[in-house]
Amino acid sequence: MKLIRFGEIGKEKPGIIQNDKRYDVSAFGEDYTEQFFETDGLSRLADFIKDNLLPEVADDVRLGSPIVRPSKLVCIGLNYADHAKETNAPLPPEPVIFMKATTAIVGPFDDIMIPKNSVKTDWEVELAVVIGKKASYVEEAEAMDYVAGYVLHNDVSEREFQLERNGTWDKGKGCDTFAPLGPFLATPDEIADPHNLRLWLKVNGETMQDGTTSNFIFNLPHLISYASQFMTLLPGDIISTGTPAGVGLGMKPPIYLKAGDVVELGIEGLGESKQNLIAYAKN
Amino acid sequence: MKLIRFGEIGKEKPGIIQNDKRYDVSAFGEDYTEQFFETDGLSRLADFIKDNLLPEVADDVRLGSPIVRPSKLVCIGLNYADHAKETNAPLPPEPVIFMKATTAIVGPFDDIMIPKNSVKTDWEVELAVVIGKKASYVEEAEAMDYVAGYVLHNDVSEREFQLERNGTWDKGKGCDTFAPLGPFLATPDEIADPHNLRLWLKVNGETMQDGTTSNFIFNLPHLISYASQFMTLLPGDIISTGTPAGVGLGMKPPIYLKAGDVVELGIEGLGESKQNLIAYAKN
Repeated sequence: MKLIRFGEIGKEKPGIIQNDKRYDVSAFGEDYTEQFFETDGLSRLADFIKDNLLPEVADDVRLGSPIVRPSKLVCIGLNYADHAKETNAPLPPEPVIFMKATTAIVGPFDDIMIPKNSVKTDWEVELAVVIGKKASYVEEAEAMDYVAGYVLHNDVSEREFQLERNGTWDKGKGCDTFAPLGPFLATPDEIADPHNLRLWLKVNGETMQDGTTSNFIFNLPHLISYASQFMTLLPGDIISTGTPAGVGLGMKPPIYLKAGDVVELGIEGLGESKQNLIAYAKN
Repeated sequence: MKLIRFGEIGKEKPGIIQNDKRYDVSAFGEDYTEQFFETDGLSRLADFIKDNLLPEVADDVRLGSPIVRPSKLVCIGLNYADHAKETNAPLPPEPVIFMKATTAIVGPFDDIMIPKNSVKTDWEVELAVVIGKKASYVEEAEAMDYVAGYVLHNDVSEREFQLERNGTWDKGKGCDTFAPLGPFLATPDEIADPHNLRLWLKVNGETMQDGTTSNFIFNLPHLISYASQFMTLLPGDIISTGTPAGVGLGMKPPIYLKAGDVVELGIEGLGESKQNLIAYAKN
């Protein structure tokens, strides 16, 4: 299945994509929350879809994040050797973990707002994994059983806030609009091999990142098992698995995003997203 | 007002403390969630209490965290000069921010579980601030208007995970049971001056921390304003304001917690809490 959420910000409804068409599954009566995943919602939704005629959703309706705000958005840093190299970071002996404020989550085609006083807003295409059931001290051999699906993520990052402002990386990762998710969540049956997916990102039409998840330093079973040693992952929680080379920080000289720029990104099997950069404006 | 939540883990009900007695306010019909704070729940609850006879709650009933799991638990590092010194950290030129997984939150008298493979589990008594309304780019002069209340927090920390495991501090801060909160949330009218509160912590009856919030490096208006520059704080979100000197890491040689130890802590006006340390056990 491919899950979407559509409609105005804060009023999204659950839907699915089938044969390239969007359908409304509001009649199922549940949104894609922690409780949905915890109570085997994916199986129940699959049954519902088989048994019901679904209203179609127009192509021009806004998409939101394909899951409701989760309890946490855990990110892995430096999980591609080429990206570690471009940022002058040593290869990590074990995964780097940081947390992104969940208030950063937006839809796949929403604007990215450059934060006030930001001069180093950067992009990062990433494969994000959505957790399907409570995960604590999970063994690698069982880790993939905890995956509810996969989703495209732009791990937008403010490099000055992240690296030069006297704190952990979290300061530069959780600004509002810094986590466009989607267009859809793909369940595991949709993705033949999550360790062999091409992922790419363009800025103003120019390809900046073009990598493959086959270059992970730490694979998904390792990341899920590893993260679950340090915190319990709840159904609906997200692990974002790091970005390949080609971020703005890695350019010589570095290049950062400015209002008016357009970022497009995609992962094989997980669709594409596109964000316009806008200047800070107090809402 | 002093808000509590009581009952079994995962089934807590809302209550209050009045004249040292606990009362059940389930009849109010709302738990202490983001929505409660967002919709001026504190004022509405105050009216409800005036107009209704409340059933008493027995003293031996378990207390949970006084607020429902928030969207985020933002922590400030090194906010007391004496603590920065004992950990050999330079005085921060601006606040250090890190995030604690909200799955770490437990009640004030619940056990602290030492994580699997942990050898450096440590304590940190902290004043935590609960945010009352959505806060983004808040000015210092207005920051205190965003405070819904104060709560006692033990920012339990695994120092090896935090400092020696190749990541940001988050890895050693978010383990299950690492955030005992409570006994109660005190609304601002209960606390004459949050910048002049004594706070202390004992391990097995011996005083380890004995400080005062008058020694903050960065005061509450600064911390709230500062954090809100990097992420939007939602109603119910928590900012924990750092710990004074006297943590295990700062001892010579360092002392860490082991199963069987008992930690007691308190803040003037915010009550006391007590946690027993237990060994890791898979649930």
